[in-house]
Parts: sequence; C-alpha cells; structure tokens
Amino acid sequence: MRNMDEDNITRAVIGMHASSGNPRLRVLMTSLVQHLHAFAREVELTEDEWFRGIQFLTQVGHITTATRQEFILLSDTLGLSTLVTALNNKKPQGCTEATVFGPFHVEDSPRVELGGDVANGAQGEPCFVSGTVVDPDGRSVPHAELQVWQADAAGNYDVQYGADEPHRARATLNADERGAFYFKSIRAESYPIPHDGPVGQMLEALGRHPWRPAHLHFMVTAPGFERLITHVFRNGDQYLDSDAVFGVRSSLIADWDEHPPGHAPDGTVSAVPFYTLNFRFVLNPASAAAAPAGRKKTVAVG
Amino acid sequence: MRNMDEDNITRAVIGMHASSGNPRLRVLMTSLVQHLHAFAREVELTEDEWFRGIQFLTQVGHITTATRQEFILLSDTLGLSTLVTALNNKKPQGCTEATVFGPFHVEDSPRVELGGDVANGAQGEPCFVSGTVVDPDGRSVPHAELQVWQADAAGNYDVQYGADEPHRARATLNADERGAFYFKSIRAESYPIPHDGPVGQMLEALGRHPWRPAHLHFMVTAPGFERLITHVFRNGDQYLDSDAVFGVRSSLIADWDEHPPGHAPDGTVSAVPFYTLNFRFVLNPASAAAAPAGRKKTVAVG
Repeated sequence: MRNMDEDNITRAVIGMHASSGNPRLRVLMTSLVQHLHAFAREVELTEDEWFRGIQFLTQVGHITTATRQEFILLSDTLGLSTLVTALNNKKPQGCTEATVFGPFHVEDSPRVELGGDVANGAQGEPCFVSGTVVDPDGRSVPHAELQVWQADAAGNYDVQYGADEPHRARATLNADERGAFYFKSIRAESYPIPHDGPVGQMLEALGRHPWRPAHLHFMVTAPGFERLITHVFRNGDQYLDSDAVFGVRSSLIADWDEHPPGHAPDGTVSAVPFYTLNFRFVLNPASAAAAPAGRKKTVAVG
Repeated sequence: MRNMDEDNITRAVIGMHASSGNPRLRVLMTSLVQHLHAFAREVELTEDEWFRGIQFLTQVGHITTATRQEFILLSDTLGLSTLVTALNNKKPQGCTEATVFGPFHVEDSPRVELGGDVANGAQGEPCFVSGTVVDPDGRSVPHAELQVWQADAAGNYDVQYGADEPHRARATLNADERGAFYFKSIRAESYPIPHDGPVGQMLEALGRHPWRPAHLHFMVTAPGFERLITHVFRNGDQYLDSDAVFGVRSSLIADWDEHPPGHAPDGTVSAVPFYTLNFRFVLNPASAAAAPAGRKKTVAVG
C-alpha cells in the first residue's frame, strides 16, 4: 500500500477494513468512504476548501454542548435527518406520519397530570391542546404516553436559556383509558433555528433562511405500537413551504382555533383570547412495522 | 416543499441552494448533499446509526483543541487527506512528490542556522540530515526555506506534550546559496497517531492499527516554485506498507545510515552511534503548476 493516487486510494482504504469483525460497520464504512471520496473527486476539492471544511467541523464541534447540538442542526438543514426519518418510518396508510426529531428533546421531562399546565411559566398566548391516541382501526390506545415539547413566544426552547433553568413548555403525560389527552400550554410560534453559529453562517452563505413553521413536538409511545416521533404544525404559518429542516408533512398540519376571552376548555374563564388545538394520533402496531434486512440494527464504533 | 420522502428530499435541499451567490459553494454543497444522501440510502441508515454518527462527530469535536486536530486525523485515516493531496499536487515527472500535511504542523517554528540543532532537547538517537533543493533541471534553488518537524523517540511531537512546552524537533531554516541544507536532529521513529480518542476507537473497531512509518516532515518554499509539503520516510520501517494515513510514496523513502561513535558530520566527535540522512528536493516551477479550472479556489462559508 504505497503510492496512493486519486484512482487507487479508495480501494486501499476499503481494503483496510476487510478485517473488521463487525459486518454492518464494514458496510457502513465502505459506503461512507466511497461517497466521501467521490465527492472530493467530483468537485476536485482544493486543499484550501478541505481545510475550510476541517475548520467548519471544528467550529460545529466546539459550539456543541449538552443543550446545543450543532451537528444535529447540520444534519437537519442538509436534509439528512428527514431522509433518515423517511427511510425508517414507512408506515401503512392512515398512520400518523413521523418527522424530524430535532435537537431539543430532553429525557425525563416533568410529568403533568391530564389537563395540567405544560407551559410552567413559558411566555406565550394560552393554548388548550386535546386529542386522542388510536390504532389504525380507530380503537383507542389506553394510557399512551405523550412527551410534548415546544418553543415559547420568543422562539426559544427552555434549554436555550441555560442548562440550569427549570423545564418549561415541555412535559410527559399519559392519555386516559380511552386514549384521550388534554393539557394547557402556549401557542406555538414560528422561530429560527439557532443561527449564531457555523450552521447559521452556512445557511446565510447559501442564501437560506433559518426559520421553522410553528409546531408542537410529540413523542407518543404505547406497548405494542411503534414509537411515533412527530410534530403538529400550525395551519397558515408562512414557513410551511420553506421549513429550514424540511420537516413539514401535509397530514401533520392542524388548525389552531382562536377564541375570544371567556370560558376556556379547562373550566376557567380566560381574561385574554386563547387558542385550541385538537389532533388524533394513529399509532402503527409494532407487528406491522416495516423492518427490512439491514434496518434497526445498532452499530457500535469502539 | 412539503411531504419530503427518500426520493424527493435530495432535490429539495439542492433547490434551496440555487439562490446562493457563491457559485463554487453551490457546486460543493450540491455534490456533498447528493453523496451524503446517497450514502444514507445505500446503507439504509438506521436512526440508531445516525445518532451514533452524531455522537461520534461530537466526540471528535470535543477532543479537538489548538494542538490536537481530531478532524484531520479522521480525514487522514479515511484516506481523504491523501486523495486531496493527490488531486492538488500533480507534478511533472522528476519533481519530489507531495504527501499528507498531518495535524502537527505549527506556524512560526523556531529559526535555526544552517548546521544548527533542530532537536532542541527532544529525546532520540542523533541524526545528521543534509541535502539540496534543486529545480527539475538539477539547478540549485538558492536560499530555499525549509520547515522540518518530526516526532521524538517516544513517538510524540512537541505539541503533544502541551501547548506551553518549548518547540522541539521542529524548526525553520534556509538553504545556502547553492541550495544546500544541513542540520542536526534525532532519528525519526515509527509511532502511532493519537489513538486515545474517537478516531482511535474507530480504527480499533475496523481492525486497523494506528501506526505510521518513521518520517520527517518537510515544507519547502522558494520564490517561483510551488510549495512542497512532503515527508521523507525511513527505509526498512515495518509500517511502510500499512501507514495508517496512506501517505507512503516509494520516491520519498530514503536510507538512514548508521555510524559507530566517532567523527560526526558537524565536526564534533560523537560518543554514541549516530545516523545520517541525505535527500534531494526537486521543486516544481510555479509556472508549470497544473491548475485545472475549479482548483485552487478558496470557498468562504459565511
């Protein structure tokens, strides 16, 4: 293995991986190296451009913390996240579609009772959310667990205010025995993804805006069903057709209905206008989950 | 741009870049997105694997500092650095070949006089290096500047001992008016690239060793000539055919001659055995530099 040039280097690298004991890792690395090299050859990558790429990835790594995941933003804005979501969530017609996970999910968000306040002080216009969790035949899925998270009126998730801040506009709750759920929160607003870092610079250089249409994130789980990670988008949002992370699906757009001050769904009287949103989640039974060979495997590097 | 799936996402992302004012950036990003997506589709990348990739890149970013460049190690070990070197350094027959830059170069290394001590206290067996810098017709290149850097007997570069350590086994010097250069240093030894981080874990998972054959790094510059970034490799090294970064070229292998204690080339008497190395660098005139369209351009992201 000497005298590598642009024609023989790819085969040489792949050949070095032949002794890997992990067949799936070998498949992944063979394809990755081929495409990485094909990219460099196709664009005739210069040494300056290569170094600019090294610097860019270094900046992405250095801005990434426990509460800011710039590599996920990079994957999201290059459409990789949506592609991986599409590859892994082929559901039968009628099931609620999945969309991108995003970088703002937090494990172990606070539990609230049905009807409880998810906002926990987050600023925004009041919004009462309700819905049901059902199977493809319309039968209720009792006690399904829902995790919900969203940005506030300023366009920030709680974690963007600092790791020590209390959780706001983020909670875990369970539907009742009929699969029904309801809670109080704030109205979702469109917001820019964090764009004060290298991914923001990249979007600007590409002439792209960083905005996402208003949405609520949901992760819905129940025994016997595939886990559903999705959004509900707000109808009428100006960014529904130019989502910076390519996540919008028509079936996930719902109306946020505006109501004047008065009697609210939770039995209180609201002194300000409020909104209501209703959505039905249709879960895919786990047995029906499409899992072709090669999918659903975990790869361990090291 | 709604309802993105594995078939339409790639075109949608590329379409978003159509308004970029930087045509070269558009070329780069179009190719990058196509190959990144083709990789994910080809291997049917799972969500777990995607997340493991995000974690891996995060680890690479977090271990990277001013003196440890794990992204360059990653590029080197995946053969990308050698590919980019090959694409950008097509020289006429007879010119000294280039090889990978590596992550251990430092700007403004200490100046030494011709014949001076480059080791500056670095541990290793004494080695006297000499040679000439010439053009393709064998005419001397007067006063060519040479930067040299190498690992010590323990296999470490000075910067690996800490950013505040004095520079050792690293210097800048100028050839004389006949293009001749000579200096004292230590014998180069084979060494493993830093492998206590994510790239080391990757190599281990792939069944690959992290070793590089013994070498001296050189960067040679002179007005009117292409900058030459290369190594001189030590003949007989056991890793010449399995360099972890694919950098070995037959034309760059030279003999390190062993001598018993006695009169050394610098006029002193050595009480211990010492080595000598002689190498001739043939620079490529700048006017002859192959620079096809698309090469040598700098891309600005942000």
